[in-house]
Amino acid sequence: MKPPIMHELVLGLGGRSYPITIGYNFLDSLHEVCPLITSKNIVVISNKTVSALYLSVITSSLEKIQSNYIVINLPDGEQEKKLSNVELIVSKMLAKNLDRSTVIIALGGGVIGDIAGFVASVYQRGIDFIQVPTTLLSQVDSSVGGKTGVNHLLGKNMIGSFYQPKAVVIDIKTLDTLNEREFSAGAAEIIKYGCIRDIRFFEWLEQNSMLIMSKSLEHLAYAIRKSCEIKSSIVERDERESGIRATLNFGHTFGHAIESGCGYGNWLHGEAVSFGMVLASRLSQKLDLLKEDEVARIKNLLASVNLPVNSPKLDNSTFVDLMKKDKKNKNNLINYILLDGIGNSLVRGFMPEEILDFLAHV
Amino acid sequence: MKPPIMHELVLGLGGRSYPITIGYNFLDSLHEVCPLITSKNIVVISNKTVSALYLSVITSSLEKIQSNYIVINLPDGEQEKKLSNVELIVSKMLAKNLDRSTVIIALGGGVIGDIAGFVASVYQRGIDFIQVPTTLLSQVDSSVGGKTGVNHLLGKNMIGSFYQPKAVVIDIKTLDTLNEREFSAGAAEIIKYGCIRDIRFFEWLEQNSMLIMSKSLEHLAYAIRKSCEIKSSIVERDERESGIRATLNFGHTFGHAIESGCGYGNWLHGEAVSFGMVLASRLSQKLDLLKEDEVARIKNLLASVNLPVNSPKLDNSTFVDLMKKDKKNKNNLINYILLDGIGNSLVRGFMPEEILDFLAHV
Repeated sequence: MKPPIMHELVLGLGGRSYPITIGYNFLDSLHEVCPLITSKNIVVISNKTVSALYLSVITSSLEKIQSNYIVINLPDGEQEKKLSNVELIVSKMLAKNLDRSTVIIALGGGVIGDIAGFVASVYQRGIDFIQVPTTLLSQVDSSVGGKTGVNHLLGKNMIGSFYQPKAVVIDIKTLDTLNEREFSAGAAEIIKYGCIRDIRFFEWLEQNSMLIMSKSLEHLAYAIRKSCEIKSSIVERDERESGIRATLNFGHTFGHAIESGCGYGNWLHGEAVSFGMVLASRLSQKLDLLKEDEVARIKNLLASVNLPVNSPKLDNSTFVDLMKKDKKNKNNLINYILLDGIGNSLVRGFMPEEILDFLAHV
Repeated sequence: MKPPIMHELVLGLGGRSYPITIGYNFLDSLHEVCPLITSKNIVVISNKTVSALYLSVITSSLEKIQSNYIVINLPDGEQEKKLSNVELIVSKMLAKNLDRSTVIIALGGGVIGDIAGFVASVYQRGIDFIQVPTTLLSQVDSSVGGKTGVNHLLGKNMIGSFYQPKAVVIDIKTLDTLNEREFSAGAAEIIKYGCIRDIRFFEWLEQNSMLIMSKSLEHLAYAIRKSCEIKSSIVERDERESGIRATLNFGHTFGHAIESGCGYGNWLHGEAVSFGMVLASRLSQKLDLLKEDEVARIKNLLASVNLPVNSPKLDNSTFVDLMKKDKKNKNNLINYILLDGIGNSLVRGFMPEEILDFLAHV
């Protein structure tokens, strides 16, 4: 019997192209979906929570083809996305004499995908890896496009690489066990794609947000597929973020600062991005790029999936200081993604003082 | 006045091609040689010994164009090539709010080039860097080709990346201050290129080794140019070492194990590679790929530049255990580069027991 695959697409980057496979309840056929997984050495990197739920289906796939695998479980949480864990994983792999033909499977959310991808990019100067994202956020965003990395005390994702996976395998069944707050956080990135790139998708989301929230399989699969499609089309044009890829950061300049300023984990990434998108929309409105009713539509859509649209407790000057460290900045200007109408985006640099003034009056 | 440039070549990798410039006493014109260096943020990564000698010529170049630069000096030595120093450098750069447009200049030998290149590859997912190698070994080998990395307790260069510099700038004047032992160690890699790829260059080296050792500028510049040329031609064909690039590791499977087993620094890299090449030549001879007199010629050439051609004190089973961790290994075979006559090389896998037997009778 063929695995129940619902959508297949390809992120096209020449010799480094890879498939993105979306389906329901098919992780026990992972080896069929990814011919790269053979009997060679496999390292499954995951965390304890995800492992308790899904490791057995992955290993049942690996055992069918007699792979030689080890499992490395990290503790849960964003605070684990750090260089010392990279060293820990590398040490465990070296202790097993694992060579360059080893394949890493990242089984988990964005934290696991980012750190496992980074390990793959630096282990003996780079080995193959496969993303098996198990949260909505990682399925629609972080598992696709090859951004890997870990956090530093002075900022998020400050140590990392652009390193593409060999496959992304999205099993929607893993969302059955995702809590509601995490699910909403993932929806923030789905809404982002509509905002920056596709007014029709935005309208579809306005009409179907309740069905997505109730996890209608068909609607959820479509939203994930559409998100991966939009992200792929952008990454294909600008893999290393020298131009258009920056637009994927809509809401993220504000968002990263909220996450960092409020302490990682207090605001989830998607929650911080949600309020960040509200602020970026207001900033767009201030420049007459967006109308009041468009800002209201964005706020309403975010609120309809239970995302925060109001400000966290964060002092404005601290907020701006944090944004001065954003990776997109150039020449002491802080870069924001603005909307020129829903579905169109652009990048614009602002002086810190302009943003302080904006925040004081927003 | 134009800087006294003696040779210029290009390592061709499409959009990631870069110039290799060889000359004498021109580092104070670095900004002219590398138009990438403008008034933007620059980080010079070096060590205390090299800085005392050459930092001022670099900074005089940077000051001519009013660059905003900082200098990060590591302590001396291979033991500094470690992940904690990567984190240290990144921390210093983040504390200065240095953004993605920052350019790193690696000023030093292989240790500095490898760690600075690795920092460049992971800082905010990758920034530009320039190699300014100041040892013979780094000028003819490690600065060219984009291998970066740090060591791990369980092996050399186990954490790293393939990440090309934007330019390699070789000032032969820096060799004036290099001690003789380090100079000889660099010559090992020059001899390697003749062995694996170019019988004529090997013969030229046999005829001119004394002139190289006496630092005849013309001969030294030619040997460096020829080495960079051979290395470039190999890297162009196989950047990520899936095939022919492995031949650059002639002598290195044995060599890395000697370095590691005898304690880094007790045997210099080039010294370990020298004896490694002797062993690999003997292994080639055992397989009737090389004649006794060819092995003798290789030994004689190495000895003529004061390189060791005899065994270190290292227990054979320890030696083999160390080689089991080599990055080139696959399917539990240890891979060696053998010579099929001087000037031709091939890769061959051996079972650990075969190598134990070989070492017992060599």
